[in-house]
Amino acid sequence: MGGDSAPGVEVEGAVLAAREYGVGVILVGRGDVLGPELARHDTDGLAIEIVQADQVITMDDNPTQALRKKRDSSIRVAARLVREGQAHGLISAGNTGAAMATSKIVLGVLPGVHRPALAQVFPTLEDTWAILIDVGANVDCPAEMLAQFAIMGDVYSRVLCHRDNPRVGLLSIGEEEHKGNDQTRAVTPLLKQLPLNFIGNVEGGDLYSGKADVVVCDGFIGNVALKVSEGLVKTIKSMLRESLEANLARKMGFVLARNAFEDFRKRVDYSEYGGAPLLGVKGVCIICHGSSNANAIKNAIRVAKEFYEGGVNNKIEAAVVKSLNSVGAT
Amino acid sequence: MGGDSAPGVEVEGAVLAAREYGVGVILVGRGDVLGPELARHDTDGLAIEIVQADQVITMDDNPTQALRKKRDSSIRVAARLVREGQAHGLISAGNTGAAMATSKIVLGVLPGVHRPALAQVFPTLEDTWAILIDVGANVDCPAEMLAQFAIMGDVYSRVLCHRDNPRVGLLSIGEEEHKGNDQTRAVTPLLKQLPLNFIGNVEGGDLYSGKADVVVCDGFIGNVALKVSEGLVKTIKSMLRESLEANLARKMGFVLARNAFEDFRKRVDYSEYGGAPLLGVKGVCIICHGSSNANAIKNAIRVAKEFYEGGVNNKIEAAVVKSLNSVGAT
Repeated sequence: MGGDSAPGVEVEGAVLAAREYGVGVILVGRGDVLGPELARHDTDGLAIEIVQADQVITMDDNPTQALRKKRDSSIRVAARLVREGQAHGLISAGNTGAAMATSKIVLGVLPGVHRPALAQVFPTLEDTWAILIDVGANVDCPAEMLAQFAIMGDVYSRVLCHRDNPRVGLLSIGEEEHKGNDQTRAVTPLLKQLPLNFIGNVEGGDLYSGKADVVVCDGFIGNVALKVSEGLVKTIKSMLRESLEANLARKMGFVLARNAFEDFRKRVDYSEYGGAPLLGVKGVCIICHGSSNANAIKNAIRVAKEFYEGGVNNKIEAAVVKSLNSVGAT
Repeated sequence: MGGDSAPGVEVEGAVLAAREYGVGVILVGRGDVLGPELARHDTDGLAIEIVQADQVITMDDNPTQALRKKRDSSIRVAARLVREGQAHGLISAGNTGAAMATSKIVLGVLPGVHRPALAQVFPTLEDTWAILIDVGANVDCPAEMLAQFAIMGDVYSRVLCHRDNPRVGLLSIGEEEHKGNDQTRAVTPLLKQLPLNFIGNVEGGDLYSGKADVVVCDGFIGNVALKVSEGLVKTIKSMLRESLEANLARKMGFVLARNAFEDFRKRVDYSEYGGAPLLGVKGVCIICHGSSNANAIKNAIRVAKEFYEGGVNNKIEAAVVKSLNSVGAT
């Protein structure tokens, strides 16, 4: 209910996902809004139902206050359905802070995990997918927390990106171990001790180069990196469009090359990858952009399905236990 | 002497700048290499001379060690020429750490300045130029240091980007004041006290939106933001090229729209803006990418000229004194 274009794109995305992936979808929110919206689609044979939630947390709500005051919000009811086993995961394009806080409190945190972290998937030049973790759930992270981001990212890369032995890099400002800040220098020895394919420091430019499969960073850094990327893609699209509309020859060229731009758009378009999973909570929680379109919602539902079926959480639990042993043993 | 393609592009850039801007250029380095390189160009009527420096600091050299051991390096000799008033500024495309460390030690720091900072200029969607400061000279910056970055960035924006009352933003992970980390929350009260047009927090996406003229951040964050941007531009160019070469119609379209891509390339190409100034040192120091081409070197020389003629350093000194008074007065 809380996305920028809610609930139109959410309902459409749910219908697309139910048809394409054969999943059941529960739409949580105000029935008087969701009912008519759903009725606009052909849902014949699809397992889509509506569960009532009276309240909506808006983008302007303070997450902590909203969590306390709006106990019947759509995100909270959705989280309860997951906790009670009536749903396998939840997807939200609403207030990110509220979705994260609600998931942590209602679903709880996996045993041994310090703090859940938000992972963002990126396309690379090598046609692989890289994961940046954390992109905004935690700031001023101590070394132990960053080390767990690496462990959770490693599991996610194996299951969702099908990487055999994910290369884990630490986001810093130079490849050499001493190049970085107090935080990177504190976590490096820990990362070396863990049963990971740790490749050392990587730089901002390596996010897209395919050099690493998992890039670990503080949520402040990750959020800046993510938003700089989104802002730059938007800027480049706009500049390119301006240039291409400047005269007739260019316009004709654009028409001929239209499919190329469409391909390109798909490769850089975040809506193709689904949302960002919140790793470390019990259950599945996928956070989408507020500005998600139906395609993004559909893909987020696919990611939730793969996350659940791939047993990501059991594997994270096992990896966290293993890592505690490996660090403790040294 | 230390750039990736040195000294070919440096010499060519110097010749272009001497011709286009009517400046004198001193090439510092090994005369046996620079002489023949310069002889390849038509330098009739241009004020270009060579000053000998026997040693070269390479990209692989540790800056601190190189500074101590290579006392006759080209960067060090160039810095001496500036200190002695024989040159008005220095430009380097070599080892960034060495260029910064040498400038700080040989040129010295302006009175009242805690630490020099590296400023990077960006194009925005509004067709203005924004400055990101610091992009890698300092990490783990205390609040007072960040506040000075704001002051220096404000001066630079006024002089070099011709902004009347630059909007100064603090790079963070949400617009609200409480959204950030310990560092952003510590500097916000200081920024509010300074005689600046402080607009509060800005997000990563705002770098390119034109919302702020000066974006202040820790050098670790700034370096990641800069390198993520560079990596993404490279990735997008490569993906777009692949898409455009996939079949004949697209190739024809690309030919028709070629000038559009050229326009676009210029707008996103860092070589058009010149290098990044190191603000806060006595004298002028412009740091270029190791991979700079001749155009980038030419533009860096233009920036150095404008920096010197605009009296940036006197203005920074005055602004720092004024800021100390304004903070002390509260």
